[in-house]
Amino acid sequence: MHHDHSRWGPTDQIGAANLLTAETRLNALGLVRKGRIYDVSHEIDAGAPYMPPNQTPFLLSIWASWKDSIKRRRKIGATNDAGSNVERAEMTMHVGTHIDALGHFSIGDHLYNGLPAADVVTDWGLDRLGIEHMPPLVTRGVLLDVSGLDGGAHLNPGRVVTPDDLARAADRAEVALRPGDVVLIRTGWGRYFGVDNHRYLEGEPGIDVPAARWLTRQDVVAIGCDNMAVEVLPNPDRTLMMPVHQHVLAEAGVHLIENLALEELARDRLSQFCFILLATKYKGATGCPVRPIAMA
Amino acid sequence: MHHDHSRWGPTDQIGAANLLTAETRLNALGLVRKGRIYDVSHEIDAGAPYMPPNQTPFLLSIWASWKDSIKRRRKIGATNDAGSNVERAEMTMHVGTHIDALGHFSIGDHLYNGLPAADVVTDWGLDRLGIEHMPPLVTRGVLLDVSGLDGGAHLNPGRVVTPDDLARAADRAEVALRPGDVVLIRTGWGRYFGVDNHRYLEGEPGIDVPAARWLTRQDVVAIGCDNMAVEVLPNPDRTLMMPVHQHVLAEAGVHLIENLALEELARDRLSQFCFILLATKYKGATGCPVRPIAMA
Amino acid sequence: MHHDHSRWGPTDQIGAANLLTAETRLNALGLVRKGRIYDVSHEIDAGAPYMPPNQTPFLLSIWASWKDSIKRRRKIGATNDAGSNVERAEMTMHVGTHIDALGHFSIGDHLYNGLPAADVVTDWGLDRLGIEHMPPLVTRGVLLDVSGLDGGAHLNPGRVVTPDDLARAADRAEVALRPGDVVLIRTGWGRYFGVDNHRYLEGEPGIDVPAARWLTRQDVVAIGCDNMAVEVLPNPDRTLMMPVHQHVLAEAGVHLIENLALEELARDRLSQFCFILLATKYKGATGCPVRPIAMA
Amino acid sequence: MHHDHSRWGPTDQIGAANLLTAETRLNALGLVRKGRIYDVSHEIDAGAPYMPPNQTPFLLSIWASWKDSIKRRRKIGATNDAGSNVERAEMTMHVGTHIDALGHFSIGDHLYNGLPAADVVTDWGLDRLGIEHMPPLVTRGVLLDVSGLDGGAHLNPGRVVTPDDLARAADRAEVALRPGDVVLIRTGWGRYFGVDNHRYLEGEPGIDVPAARWLTRQDVVAIGCDNMAVEVLPNPDRTLMMPVHQHVLAEAGVHLIENLALEELARDRLSQFCFILLATKYKGATGCPVRPIAMA
Repeated sequence: MHHDHSRWGPTDQIGAANLLTAETRLNALGLVRKGRIYDVSHEIDAGAPYMPPNQTPFLLSIWASWKDSIKRRRKIGATNDAGSNVERAEMTMHVGTHIDALGHFSIGDHLYNGLPAADVVTDWGLDRLGIEHMPPLVTRGVLLDVSGLDGGAHLNPGRVVTPDDLARAADRAEVALRPGDVVLIRTGWGRYFGVDNHRYLEGEPGIDVPAARWLTRQDVVAIGCDNMAVEVLPNPDRTLMMPVHQHVLAEAGVHLIENLALEELARDRLSQFCFILLATKYKGATGCPVRPIAMA
Repeated sequence: MHHDHSRWGPTDQIGAANLLTAETRLNALGLVRKGRIYDVSHEIDAGAPYMPPNQTPFLLSIWASWKDSIKRRRKIGATNDAGSNVERAEMTMHVGTHIDALGHFSIGDHLYNGLPAADVVTDWGLDRLGIEHMPPLVTRGVLLDVSGLDGGAHLNPGRVVTPDDLARAADRAEVALRPGDVVLIRTGWGRYFGVDNHRYLEGEPGIDVPAARWLTRQDVVAIGCDNMAVEVLPNPDRTLMMPVHQHVLAEAGVHLIENLALEELARDRLSQFCFILLATKYKGATGCPVRPIAMA
Repeated sequence: MHHDHSRWGPTDQIGAANLLTAETRLNALGLVRKGRIYDVSHEIDAGAPYMPPNQTPFLLSIWASWKDSIKRRRKIGATNDAGSNVERAEMTMHVGTHIDALGHFSIGDHLYNGLPAADVVTDWGLDRLGIEHMPPLVTRGVLLDVSGLDGGAHLNPGRVVTPDDLARAADRAEVALRPGDVVLIRTGWGRYFGVDNHRYLEGEPGIDVPAARWLTRQDVVAIGCDNMAVEVLPNPDRTLMMPVHQHVLAEAGVHLIENLALEELARDRLSQFCFILLATKYKGATGCPVRPIAMA
Repeated sequence: MHHDHSRWGPTDQIGAANLLTAETRLNALGLVRKGRIYDVSHEIDAGAPYMPPNQTPFLLSIWASWKDSIKRRRKIGATNDAGSNVERAEMTMHVGTHIDALGHFSIGDHLYNGLPAADVVTDWGLDRLGIEHMPPLVTRGVLLDVSGLDGGAHLNPGRVVTPDDLARAADRAEVALRPGDVVLIRTGWGRYFGVDNHRYLEGEPGIDVPAARWLTRQDVVAIGCDNMAVEVLPNPDRTLMMPVHQHVLAEAGVHLIENLALEELARDRLSQFCFILLATKYKGATGCPVRPIAMA
């Protein structure tokens, strides 16, 4: 392990995000030439795929409607008939396109930076390592497109994306990774998100620990993918579940971004761009839905 | 009314956001010199203020804990003790720093662009005008600081911020509004957010319809404030409730951003900057919590 | 239609439950000889079947745990280490064994007693006809067992239980229906509840409108069944959906009890008994989970 | 301690409810002469009092409305315009008139019968000692009215109801407690439930451990009261929090029934009656809202 927990000090809660600087931000903004925005997120609704039992359904319904709120306001003297529509949502933070907080996964009883889960995980969220600590990401994004490696439009469940696969994709794209980068891996699997959830969730192509290490060793701050878990499912070693989450989040302090929509970026053959992701500061949350964009 | 509903055509769902172009984005990015980020949002937790009955409490608790998920994974053969921490949240989308969708308010039975609320508002959210239609905001932000106008650190509840107040604040800041701008109004009231919610919600200083019209007439795309509702509460005319919401959202098609944290921007006397807000695409939602930033 | 809406007067909210009297209660209690209780309800958990989109998942998780609550109480001075375990549930009221309120179904825009749904159905529940109006049921229960009519252990989906089927089952059981009775129909379909939800929900044997009318004409106060909807699904007339709900609830003012567990009653060949059902008074709710019992 | 944990054996989950027999039930039913029902529960709505942070708000809103469900059914071919009204509730099980499961409270790390909380309390509820194990209560209820002991209409917060107070109330009522009884204590405090929640929750009159022991020693199966916690709040010993809950639930295996509405029983001077409480079988829940009745 090259990332030891004390790299950023015993009180650190943001991991590799320490690598983000004014310079990485200015460099990223320098990549924007046309002012064009690529939206790399999916819409979130009750049809969003989820993996029970840890992930749970997304439910949203109107709590206050224009009609009843007008009635209520008339009763207390209003004459301007201002109707409010307001919903109530019940949800997991890991719905749709979302980012994982560093405290989302443990290795046994320990979280990132060696923190004991028994102390950090409270009834009402994470006492430390929650998503509110995630700094805004305005940094270079790099797209590594491996979708065509097996000759089809996408890789298949159980297909491990190797370090070599990533290295070659970077070569093809003529990009060399740099500290502070966000790497987006396109497997092509995202086409089934919300379209055929059953298929989308039965398994997925993705990276295993070696490719994850290859990336974290190069000091990326986040790894995203067009699948549910970034990592290959099922793992080739059936006795390992979610080992990439363990390495990336808990060991390396690198964020994971899941369920990305990467088709437009691929279509326009963008390999590097300014990537912006602003995690909503839900205190103590283990992640949150996001709407990242790429700018070029 | 200068904004007639048909300005952007009968199928339009984004209103003034039609003014956002590659040019407005590039101009905004051009304001970033130092690569510095100002976070203008509050953390969201159970202590976030809300105005019942239309707004409701924010509740978050751990749904799956590292400990139990390790047990569950062991039972199905895992040996690597990967523990997941995942929460469940129950919430209004209008919690903390958030943006209102155009369909959030009606004038009688009609929403923005003359759409009939009876058709648009369904059991499970807005069929049109939901927050998923809001384009990413990467545009110029302008801070109009009126907090000191009455000689104190903040204005007080019921204090109307007038068009003249805003015009003079713009003059002092040496900024002229341009189409596509986001205007952030600082009343100083935000200091009570989460600190003294009772006081924060008893009323607030803010704009009334004349100042709102002064802003929308200049083609801003969003108006934000360091209070709960942007608009003055209670309204000087006690028979009017939320008239600014009606004008800005339903008439002008301009978004509202609420509960902003503007202290740092004010401290550094920033009057213009690159403003970035990425609304999460909850389908049919009447708004959503956000984490906007200013860059300079 | 023999039940006209005005039978119990224009302000009535309980329908046939008006037939419940001290006499019907005392008669029912007179059926209890051995003091034996039959529990006719299922357990409710996340595995309870539901029919989307109107029915929604049942979710329950620990909100406050013994461990954290002890910590919290220690901080404010407690020395006795009293740990509280408290959950949070998100649910439909139509989960598990449950009863439907009279306001649960409409015929077009009207509810029971001709009440306009537009007035009664508010953002936060029913202004009238909610389950809180349901009186406690302590009355005679009659079991009509039709499960073996087709020669198997249960009837099959789409099988209509006719008035003749019910009449013959009553004859076999040597029971004549009386005003104030609760009738429980056993189709045998309940064996799949929670065991094979997919099968349980694909369709079900049950009564159609003629048998429903045969029962309501005899002034029963509630009709229960060991299936999800009491009525046959799909209806033989594919252009009719839930017509039994319309007749029973909205027209006749008779309650429906669903997802009953009737195996023990059948095993002991009980045809009449004291039936007790105490609907929890959730104000404005369209029904509620219950735990009815039979006593003999 | 006279109740040792092994009284009912190491696998027991129902405690004193083991004392319920056909005989106790038949005796209770024998008390019903007039067939009259007394409803001893409050309605449950968003205005129900709750004690944060362990108790949480009750929220109910319409999930599916008659209007939209008719639209949806028309789209799939229905012609009978059957409209469904169905809500979604988010709730604590300890809302309104409710019963506590034996697993609701711990003494340190142990629950009733010496069970280790770390094993029993899972992410999704209690693995043992949940409310689904509670047998139906059809047993004798005894009302002990102490409301007038201090000369007013009710006792006041902090007022300890002593064993002597209870003994004298039983004498006045000419009732001797018997194994299997449910005891309902009337302090008069219930008049503020839902009427002045602030006052209702600031503190309450109730029993302390001595009176609780006096009751459990006589083998009652449940203790109810017209206040939030049965026990006096605050405890006279400020270093003790909820010691009655610890003794009654975790030590004695006796259930607690809270927020009862006892005015009618008192008005009619009923001292003994048939008490019926049917706890809904939410699997693993730490309690549930109920609608108990008294019959006479």
